[in-house]
Amino acid sequence: MSAQDQLDRTLAMLAATPGWHRLRELRPDLDDEIAAAVLDGARRLADEVLAPLDDAADREGCRIEAGRVKVPAAYHAAWRAFAEGGWIGLDTDPRFDGAGLPLILQAAATQLFDRACPAFNMGTGATRSAAVLLAERASPEIAQDWVPALVAGERAATICISEAGAGSDVGRIRTRARLEDGRWRISGQKIWISFGDHDLTTRIGHCLLARTSDAPGTRGLSLFLVPNAVGDGRRNGVSVQRIEEKMGLHGSPTCVLDFDEAEGDLIGEEGRGLSQLFTMIELMRLQVGCQGLGIASRACDVAARYADERLQGGDPSAPPVPLAAHPDVRRQLSAMRGRTELLRAAVLELAARLDLARAGEGDAAALASWMLPLVKTFGAETGFDVANAGIQVLGGAGYTKEWPLERALRDARVMAIYEGTTGMQGIDFLERRLVRDRDGFDAFLVTARAAQPQVGARARAAGDVLDRLERLADRLSACPDAQSRLAAADAWLRAGWLGIAAWLWPRIGDDAAPVLLALPSRLAVLEAEIAEVLREP
Amino acid sequence: MSAQDQLDRTLAMLAATPGWHRLRELRPDLDDEIAAAVLDGARRLADEVLAPLDDAADREGCRIEAGRVKVPAAYHAAWRAFAEGGWIGLDTDPRFDGAGLPLILQAAATQLFDRACPAFNMGTGATRSAAVLLAERASPEIAQDWVPALVAGERAATICISEAGAGSDVGRIRTRARLEDGRWRISGQKIWISFGDHDLTTRIGHCLLARTSDAPGTRGLSLFLVPNAVGDGRRNGVSVQRIEEKMGLHGSPTCVLDFDEAEGDLIGEEGRGLSQLFTMIELMRLQVGCQGLGIASRACDVAARYADERLQGGDPSAPPVPLAAHPDVRRQLSAMRGRTELLRAAVLELAARLDLARAGEGDAAALASWMLPLVKTFGAETGFDVANAGIQVLGGAGYTKEWPLERALRDARVMAIYEGTTGMQGIDFLERRLVRDRDGFDAFLVTARAAQPQVGARARAAGDVLDRLERLADRLSACPDAQSRLAAADAWLRAGWLGIAAWLWPRIGDDAAPVLLALPSRLAVLEAEIAEVLREP
Repeated sequence: MSAQDQLDRTLAMLAATPGWHRLRELRPDLDDEIAAAVLDGARRLADEVLAPLDDAADREGCRIEAGRVKVPAAYHAAWRAFAEGGWIGLDTDPRFDGAGLPLILQAAATQLFDRACPAFNMGTGATRSAAVLLAERASPEIAQDWVPALVAGERAATICISEAGAGSDVGRIRTRARLEDGRWRISGQKIWISFGDHDLTTRIGHCLLARTSDAPGTRGLSLFLVPNAVGDGRRNGVSVQRIEEKMGLHGSPTCVLDFDEAEGDLIGEEGRGLSQLFTMIELMRLQVGCQGLGIASRACDVAARYADERLQGGDPSAPPVPLAAHPDVRRQLSAMRGRTELLRAAVLELAARLDLARAGEGDAAALASWMLPLVKTFGAETGFDVANAGIQVLGGAGYTKEWPLERALRDARVMAIYEGTTGMQGIDFLERRLVRDRDGFDAFLVTARAAQPQVGARARAAGDVLDRLERLADRLSACPDAQSRLAAADAWLRAGWLGIAAWLWPRIGDDAAPVLLALPSRLAVLEAEIAEVLREP
Repeated sequence: MSAQDQLDRTLAMLAATPGWHRLRELRPDLDDEIAAAVLDGARRLADEVLAPLDDAADREGCRIEAGRVKVPAAYHAAWRAFAEGGWIGLDTDPRFDGAGLPLILQAAATQLFDRACPAFNMGTGATRSAAVLLAERASPEIAQDWVPALVAGERAATICISEAGAGSDVGRIRTRARLEDGRWRISGQKIWISFGDHDLTTRIGHCLLARTSDAPGTRGLSLFLVPNAVGDGRRNGVSVQRIEEKMGLHGSPTCVLDFDEAEGDLIGEEGRGLSQLFTMIELMRLQVGCQGLGIASRACDVAARYADERLQGGDPSAPPVPLAAHPDVRRQLSAMRGRTELLRAAVLELAARLDLARAGEGDAAALASWMLPLVKTFGAETGFDVANAGIQVLGGAGYTKEWPLERALRDARVMAIYEGTTGMQGIDFLERRLVRDRDGFDAFLVTARAAQPQVGARARAAGDVLDRLERLADRLSACPDAQSRLAAADAWLRAGWLGIAAWLWPRIGDDAAPVLLALPSRLAVLEAEIAEVLREP
């Protein structure tokens, strides 16, 4: 099924996103025609090159041969087409051969790729995020050596954070870097490394956090670029130990990598590794929102088409009617579409805010930071839940591999885990984005209130939700007991997403009804949960 | 991990289930020692024989060889042990070599099997349900020929309803049976037949619905027993066309079966097939509740143990703490346990009501009919959701095949689809169990109110929920427009499960807190959804 409908919806949502209009004012090189042309190119690549990979990615998967990872054979041509189309460097600085387009267009394009084959796009996503990171943080020589090569798809890159004893708890990283004769040598083991090795490129650069001092927690961590081979093609003490056998995303090799005295270059400042890597982490969290959006969009389309074509039930003395004629099926499809379009609005809004933050616009950075855990978490959940709802519309067929939805569900399941679990996003959203610094939340309230129509029951319901969120925020901020507060983190995160619904519903037109359905009551559930945890009367 | 904890919880819940005490009064042969002995035997079989099958069931799966289905090799010994232990005939009439134990003990035992290997137990479940059906409905000769052989595991059985054009819509079944020289000949194709063929037994009897007249809808359907081979070992026009390639339950072969002039025996009365088959359908819907309970129980145990053993986070200057020390992880574990124990209470309550209904007790039949769609639906959802929540507790590890939870999620996904989709259960629950006949709902209200403690905030909240359910029922019953009403069916089904929580919470002790958490607000969400659909002010 073609991604045309998703493209059309995305262009309409761009037009409804104020940040896009502001970006066009700031950048005279951007206009709606460019956006449409870029996205149409992305759609063609998605439909013609990437979508045909998805089944093979799942069934063929990846394997280790002679110590190196082999990806599905069909990836090779797709990787070249992807790079040659300029998609890796879409938002990379033009000084390094990137197209320098804003993140909002990158996000709008990549959700089309994630719709087609999320496993393949895991590889391009890491390489592209690393290109942006190195363009921004690396020394001119390293940036000039690596970034154009990444943009051209001649080299690839990864992000290496987790270790066996340091997953969500980054401060316990034990991989060591030590300076010897003016060169950094890195030793340790990294796990959960997506595309940690593969045969798409000869050279792979690992953007890696390692400990350079015994300063506690994250303060002793520095960022390195560790290539799998050094200048003369010599292997560099980086070896792949294992590919994880996963529920889904089989076409994205998740590697355990050993670093044994591997040479690496320090990127940026020593001891500031985590904050510097955040450029890349931010992009990859937004990417999860795009993944969820791509998967959910596809599930909506597959389910809607099945419900139109599949005949079942109705008056027994007449021919069967389409599934979509049944009230409960219509309810299911409408709920799926509403959740998907809300996510589309949120992904584009967040991307626009990140663009505006780079341009130094007012409160864009604060609001973007506030939105990031929400788009990451509910991107993941929307992808999973809408794929799941799609399986239900298809019934038994949806449970089989003849249809793409069971694969979508399996692929989507990890998205609430990687790039920071939902539990970690909740803590971040509560402790950093509210208790420690409330600017983002306050900017959200002002913006969301200003977005409401002057009249109407919907605006009143949304306004009520915003008022109650403000009171909830006050109560949580005032709670002195961190343990109680942290037990409320998940409920507060979910309340935040209801806030996004109360803000963005006017952009999603006819699909807003299920988003607004029982919204105040849904908030009341979270209020009751939070009250219980805070032991309020 | 052993099922001992699940066994202990089940025995405690039996003691808290009034229907079990009533059953012991009615049947002097039953007592707590017998229950404990039966369930301890089930636990040992589950731990020692069935649990080791689960990984092989998933990885090895089933295949067709020379026109016959081969199940995983390890199933053969397990099937014999299962049958020799008397587990197939646990609730079959002793006249046919069954143990004649009540359904409540069968349900309590089978959830232990479903915890261990749900795919294997799909085969035993169909055979056992067919044994009960044939003991009840078949002629004495057929019952004597088949039931003891099923109980002994010498033969197996299936249930054959669905066809390509008749899934949820049973009335469109096209498989034909015609009488020729005093023998019935059956022709047509059946799909989604679990264990439709296998090599565990030579003979397999298909309990099959076929059309014997052109009376519209389900009125032209009759029930047949169609063996895969006739008396002299000759094949009987039954052939397996395909095994579905599914997301999970790989160890349960889902077959497409062709019937080509196959000989069969009419069971019971011509034209009454569906209602007669309901004996079996009822057992299989209860079985879904047991499957969900087994899967959820295991997920709780795996997640709780992982959270106790896995060290992560805490004060960076001190050693890492167990996951379970984190407030949000404790919240997740508590929510999982609460949902699981609520399901345990509901499964045992429903089984007891079905037993009491067989014994002709008061309103047991009406209340059991009311509960059946709830236990079926929320058994399936609880299994899926708790497995999903368990994956989240484990994080990346949960997404890999090194842990059993991703398989549990894949296995559980079909349970909201087979034996009547959630959409069909919602229609049944609204139209048959409320609008057409309100006895079951009224019996529920009386019983649930009588189960409340005299005082306390929890009892008040539960009482409030029950009062509001009554008002919702009145509004739905009064709605004259079936299309609007049907759009509310899913919300009403979910409201019914909140009613189960309001009824049964006193039985689940310390695990009741998450079940009651925000219960009135959760009902308010459904009230708002229903009001929207009914277009009430």
